[in-house]
Amino acid sequence: MKIHNDIVLPKGYRAGGMYAGIKRKKVPDLTLLLSDEPAAVAGTFTTNLVTAAPVKVCKKRIGKGRGRAVIANSGNANCCTGARGVADAEAMANAAAKALGIPAAEVFVSSTGSIGKPLPMDVIIPGIGKLAKKISPDGGPSAARGIMTTDSGPKTGTVRMKLGGKMVTLSAIAKGAGMIEPNMATMLCYVMTDAGISSADLKRFLKPAVADSFNRISVDGDMSTNDTVLLFANGAAGAKVGYGTPDGDRFAAALLALLQKLAWLMVRDGEGADKVVKIVVTGAKTGRDAEAVARAVANSLLVKTSWHRDNPNWGRIMDAIGYAGARVVESKVDMSYDGLLAVRGGERTDMPLERLKQVQRKESFEIAINLNLGTGASWVYGCDCAHKYIDINI
Amino acid sequence: MKIHNDIVLPKGYRAGGMYAGIKRKKVPDLTLLLSDEPAAVAGTFTTNLVTAAPVKVCKKRIGKGRGRAVIANSGNANCCTGARGVADAEAMANAAAKALGIPAAEVFVSSTGSIGKPLPMDVIIPGIGKLAKKISPDGGPSAARGIMTTDSGPKTGTVRMKLGGKMVTLSAIAKGAGMIEPNMATMLCYVMTDAGISSADLKRFLKPAVADSFNRISVDGDMSTNDTVLLFANGAAGAKVGYGTPDGDRFAAALLALLQKLAWLMVRDGEGADKVVKIVVTGAKTGRDAEAVARAVANSLLVKTSWHRDNPNWGRIMDAIGYAGARVVESKVDMSYDGLLAVRGGERTDMPLERLKQVQRKESFEIAINLNLGTGASWVYGCDCAHKYIDINI
Repeated sequence: MKIHNDIVLPKGYRAGGMYAGIKRKKVPDLTLLLSDEPAAVAGTFTTNLVTAAPVKVCKKRIGKGRGRAVIANSGNANCCTGARGVADAEAMANAAAKALGIPAAEVFVSSTGSIGKPLPMDVIIPGIGKLAKKISPDGGPSAARGIMTTDSGPKTGTVRMKLGGKMVTLSAIAKGAGMIEPNMATMLCYVMTDAGISSADLKRFLKPAVADSFNRISVDGDMSTNDTVLLFANGAAGAKVGYGTPDGDRFAAALLALLQKLAWLMVRDGEGADKVVKIVVTGAKTGRDAEAVARAVANSLLVKTSWHRDNPNWGRIMDAIGYAGARVVESKVDMSYDGLLAVRGGERTDMPLERLKQVQRKESFEIAINLNLGTGASWVYGCDCAHKYIDINI
Repeated sequence: MKIHNDIVLPKGYRAGGMYAGIKRKKVPDLTLLLSDEPAAVAGTFTTNLVTAAPVKVCKKRIGKGRGRAVIANSGNANCCTGARGVADAEAMANAAAKALGIPAAEVFVSSTGSIGKPLPMDVIIPGIGKLAKKISPDGGPSAARGIMTTDSGPKTGTVRMKLGGKMVTLSAIAKGAGMIEPNMATMLCYVMTDAGISSADLKRFLKPAVADSFNRISVDGDMSTNDTVLLFANGAAGAKVGYGTPDGDRFAAALLALLQKLAWLMVRDGEGADKVVKIVVTGAKTGRDAEAVARAVANSLLVKTSWHRDNPNWGRIMDAIGYAGARVVESKVDMSYDGLLAVRGGERTDMPLERLKQVQRKESFEIAINLNLGTGASWVYGCDCAHKYIDINI
């Protein structure tokens, strides 16, 4: 299944982005997405107990499974802003609903940026009015730019496939850079399809796809207050897709591939990161143990800084494995770099250092850890940590 | 109780450090401590499941509660070195025992440095022989230098007090910089006293003192494979001290103060750190919840980078509070900087930004978080994260 890097909106969708005046720098900071017809929607949100106001609003609306628009701003997270923040998020949705002529309950809202300041509603409300007039079927790329914060570029993807004899399109825009871990942090992703899917089935499609994509990436171990993934299905392509059917399986595979690609792009674009490292853990007592080890390695600052250079400092990885909280027997641990065995039974092998260095110089490589204790397995995407991370965040 | 920064060895102890040739740079890399008479000993060790060979050897010997010497090297951790590593650690202890004319079972051994390479025994064994001839009652400062790795300077402390009519001395040398969290990582600390204390009581003195000092510091969230704290008591001062007696309480207070001072020095000297931040959490449902919140804040890379500058980015702290895994109600959280209330009920107060900045510019300040849910409380020492951390570790 080919995932195209660019975004082509499915049938019946319009989108756009513009500069409304929220950011100091004159770059896009407002995004609007619309399905012309009512659509089904499913969503997943941050598990952080401190949640941004727009997440609170979305969570209230997602229960009905119906929705057709998203208004989102970058440059301000509308988080830790109390009752006023919730009122502002609702006002954003109301303004979009009014400008588009649809019920406010069908509008979802997101914000991303820094925490603790009230939204500049004086520029956002007029901005929404203007943007509603500018959205178009080819406005996907512009919409992808309106949600960017420290992202180095827009993150988009499109898959097309024949389902039930009809050409169906599935496309998405996303943003996300720093603070990504463990359960989709500071990331936003809006997925749209013109397949016809019930809201109950949409949920069943979305949950496992998010679990195996956005929830498996780690940039710095922090988890944000604003994470939101929304999946819309408007049926405009004329094909109905049910969960668990052959067509449904193909749709699920396409959705997973699309979200995994976007997740990879997010890690690759992790604040200051130069390398993506896939950490695969097998042989754990349980899947939970395997995940704990993979995350401990991906989040270790000592491991991440070592990845920035070409010296394969597997000793730091052993250290992280040991404190992961999983059942580990040091003398049973094997570790390889892109298939080259560096550690056997907890000790170094005679693998020439230069060959391991060649792996670690790559932009993307895989570290496989076998605990040799059971059948539990898991994986995560991690990245290196370099000076640029500090530059971006101090 | 006054803690002196320098080290004066208690009666009946000799110590020293020297360059044996383990490090590339010609700086001390070998340390030897000795009590002339048999002594009681208690110890605590890393809880990492991957442990260095010398820790394995120490754990076997600590059970008897008797011991009188430590041989320690820096420049190589003797970790992930398998059976050979354990044999090397035992050979170090044997060489020291032979040179000192004492039983090998009374010699403890430590190593600190990088992981995965065998010890250069060809220089260590002759080094031990030479060092055994050089130790002296005023060799404390030299011993403190022999265990340094990325430490910017030696870490020492001495307390003197009258117990049972006798002048008793309690002094310690320590090392520790990066990778310190949560349960004493890459830190070594040897505490010596000339009080007479049973080995059963020594354990009861040491455990709570370590829990409230070294186990409350966080540099980068990593926990090392080599951490060791040993406390020796040889009775040479002629005063017997029992746990739970008035003298025992004074001794316990002195021990806690000494270890807390060394813990503070370790965080202050955390790799690349410029500031020490004490994070105090109150009002949690349980003590465990309070500790989870304190550690999440201290370990958040986003929070740590923000501390490096003077902007009090309390939004990032709210974010870390939210994902700590503790019970948190966003709208109840209060937060202050050295007593200045920055957040009330999850929202910013009207505290002038400039006043908060003045706090954050200090070398050492306190962030107090009240969750307003119960009576659970805890605290940790954290530090900022700057470019220097990356420079040291890449």
